[in-house]
Amino acid sequence: MTGADDQERAYKYRRDREMARDPSRVETFSDGIFAVVLTVMAVELLQYGPARVGGRELPDALSQAWPSYLAYVITFAIAGQVWLTHHNVWRYVVRVDQTLLVFNLLLLLFVAAIPFTADLLSDNVRGSATEQRLTGALYVGTVLGQALFFNLSWWWARRRHLLNPDLDPGLAKAVARRLRVGPLLYLIAFAVVFIDPVLSLFAYLLLVGLYLIRGPGDLPSYTTPA
Amino acid sequence: MTGADDQERAYKYRRDREMARDPSRVETFSDGIFAVVLTVMAVELLQYGPARVGGRELPDALSQAWPSYLAYVITFAIAGQVWLTHHNVWRYVVRVDQTLLVFNLLLLLFVAAIPFTADLLSDNVRGSATEQRLTGALYVGTVLGQALFFNLSWWWARRRHLLNPDLDPGLAKAVARRLRVGPLLYLIAFAVVFIDPVLSLFAYLLLVGLYLIRGPGDLPSYTTPA
Amino acid sequence: MTGADDQERAYKYRRDREMARDPSRVETFSDGIFAVVLTVMAVELLQYGPARVGGRELPDALSQAWPSYLAYVITFAIAGQVWLTHHNVWRYVVRVDQTLLVFNLLLLLFVAAIPFTADLLSDNVRGSATEQRLTGALYVGTVLGQALFFNLSWWWARRRHLLNPDLDPGLAKAVARRLRVGPLLYLIAFAVVFIDPVLSLFAYLLLVGLYLIRGPGDLPSYTTPA
Amino acid sequence: MTGADDQERAYKYRRDREMARDPSRVETFSDGIFAVVLTVMAVELLQYGPARVGGRELPDALSQAWPSYLAYVITFAIAGQVWLTHHNVWRYVVRVDQTLLVFNLLLLLFVAAIPFTADLLSDNVRGSATEQRLTGALYVGTVLGQALFFNLSWWWARRRHLLNPDLDPGLAKAVARRLRVGPLLYLIAFAVVFIDPVLSLFAYLLLVGLYLIRGPGDLPSYTTPA
Repeated sequence: MTGADDQERAYKYRRDREMARDPSRVETFSDGIFAVVLTVMAVELLQYGPARVGGRELPDALSQAWPSYLAYVITFAIAGQVWLTHHNVWRYVVRVDQTLLVFNLLLLLFVAAIPFTADLLSDNVRGSATEQRLTGALYVGTVLGQALFFNLSWWWARRRHLLNPDLDPGLAKAVARRLRVGPLLYLIAFAVVFIDPVLSLFAYLLLVGLYLIRGPGDLPSYTTPA
Repeated sequence: MTGADDQERAYKYRRDREMARDPSRVETFSDGIFAVVLTVMAVELLQYGPARVGGRELPDALSQAWPSYLAYVITFAIAGQVWLTHHNVWRYVVRVDQTLLVFNLLLLLFVAAIPFTADLLSDNVRGSATEQRLTGALYVGTVLGQALFFNLSWWWARRRHLLNPDLDPGLAKAVARRLRVGPLLYLIAFAVVFIDPVLSLFAYLLLVGLYLIRGPGDLPSYTTPA
Repeated sequence: MTGADDQERAYKYRRDREMARDPSRVETFSDGIFAVVLTVMAVELLQYGPARVGGRELPDALSQAWPSYLAYVITFAIAGQVWLTHHNVWRYVVRVDQTLLVFNLLLLLFVAAIPFTADLLSDNVRGSATEQRLTGALYVGTVLGQALFFNLSWWWARRRHLLNPDLDPGLAKAVARRLRVGPLLYLIAFAVVFIDPVLSLFAYLLLVGLYLIRGPGDLPSYTTPA
Repeated sequence: MTGADDQERAYKYRRDREMARDPSRVETFSDGIFAVVLTVMAVELLQYGPARVGGRELPDALSQAWPSYLAYVITFAIAGQVWLTHHNVWRYVVRVDQTLLVFNLLLLLFVAAIPFTADLLSDNVRGSATEQRLTGALYVGTVLGQALFFNLSWWWARRRHLLNPDLDPGLAKAVARRLRVGPLLYLIAFAVVFIDPVLSLFAYLLLVGLYLIRGPGDLPSYTTPA
């Protein structure tokens, strides 16, 4: 409103005056979300466990609750594998920009929904064919959403020079190719639901196992002392 | 009580003998709270999901639960955007004092209440006009409270030399101006509730989108290798 | 079992061959617990909020739930202040030993119980005199337990050379004296319950305010640029 | 698809082009899970506390809930001790590989199940002999699973040169021996359930106490200033 203030308003915002930031805080924040996602199913076990619900013989009550245990293991396996990929891929990121953070938040939006859809899936594994397919589709939807934003994050980080300059460009490309394969395999595992829903669950667990086979972006192994 | 003790009591506390601290622990702590806030709604989805409540056909039960999904997305969008701003703004903070920590705790008090008010809001979007306005007001209250303490944090950090000395003072002022605009826009989005409550929800989501447009305090973008 | 194995068994364990560790991981871990404690009450608001329970008019339901809001604010105030003290005190710790970690775990055991006792306290503020005194005693028990292990942590850290060697011994002593005063003030606030339970709650909140007055162990304030 | 693309496809993936990573993010992530595990029982106290359930006199309601308090203390003691071991052991790890991360995830899978089995255990301590033995077996199962993956982690880290090269090989072996003893002691504590279930609970708590006795892998103690 004063002349001095007008002068300040005249200050021209130039983005190159902004300071950079490394990805350490993004990793801490993401780890917090992964930690809650991985433990949420254990909290559910507790809340709907025989100690709380009662009214049945304990061995019976425990064995009836098998879909909850299955949901716990599936959630842990899938979300654990997503964390592993996040851990490995983000070690190549040396700085972040606005878009990468938004892609990462959207990735976490889908990751945080995994317990919900995994729970639905395991709960309806003995339901009607409609229920099996519906819950299977919802589940694969969360997993695909997560995979989509992994691909977008990597694509953006490569394009905008956010990766470690020492990263071999051929390796960066190989990682991108590997990340693209994921969603396709998930769709195949989902299609199995039309044959047998229990088989489909095992297909998901098999996929997690497949990811553990060495591939581009994974950690090196060591044969000599540090 | 003894003479030696008296002598020690005579020790004059001088605040300048205290050591400084960088903001890394404040960021870790805040990230923990943000992580819980972002995942709380997903836990709610799980607890009130069809797998737990039952008594209805699954497709029907899932589609009836749409206010929960809406609350999940709104919470994630708003709290995610607050995290993004926190991430960006705090990278300029190089040291902390007592008052800044208190302002940050009060900011987190409002952030932690967002899932509660977002849930009320989405649950009453088809309620009576009173319910819509009341829940709208509660929701905007938490968002404004959070915005207020963001403004106070930045004002205090500038005033007390807590920011990076390399930060351009013009840029610091531009960030302050941008932070001040936020609350005004939220109030406009709230006012829309008197026209149509669903439109008001979309106005909030639009605001989150607006924040993603580049402005002072955001991360730089890169055109050359690191 | 073989001679070689016997020889290895003969390896004499010497504690001085163990490596030291700085407190960074203790802080991250403690912050995770503080973050859950601070948000737990917000989750409770959500779970017992009008959106879930229903059966009443919304404005009525919201106003009936005031003890929950009170419990949220009290928990946030007390646990937030404990976090602040933890943040400030641990910045002087440069290395950790087994005993200090155990004291810190016991401190966290009491901190994690604060939401439970604060909830009981606020829920019985209009109960019978017995209920008020019982819940008041439980609450002050958790707060005193926490304060006890703060005192033990600091005493041990001073005794075992775990603090920053640049810390003025006079200041270290002044911090110890200040930490000792806390429990006494809490006991006074508890005694007020015999006069009026609501007054007792305000006394607790007043105490949190008192802690914000500058004292030994607090962060310095800055008058010159960094 | 083009010639250039074929050429890129010809890029031979060599694991030695991948970059190493230190364990800091694994520790942050694990701490997030430990923090939730340690606070989950406190959340349960809150949800099933007298403030929520009602219908009884408060002193009566509180004293009836003793198995919950027991479960809280046992979970805190066991999971706290596991955290302590994790904190101490991982300070010797200087780099991570894929297998070590998978072992750590499986360790966390069992750690996250501790609140569930501890809750069952304490809830059935006055149940029938079958219930006592069944819940005792489930509980010891989670604790043994956790101990198994601790042993595998350490064995793998030694074998694959992931430990600090300054770590005395004799000390590394002594740590391995100590980690192997744990599961045996847990089995003995479990066997006590056939004599008396309450005694078995105390045996577990005694074991936690035993772990606090100085041994290989623990933190050093200091007798001189830092």
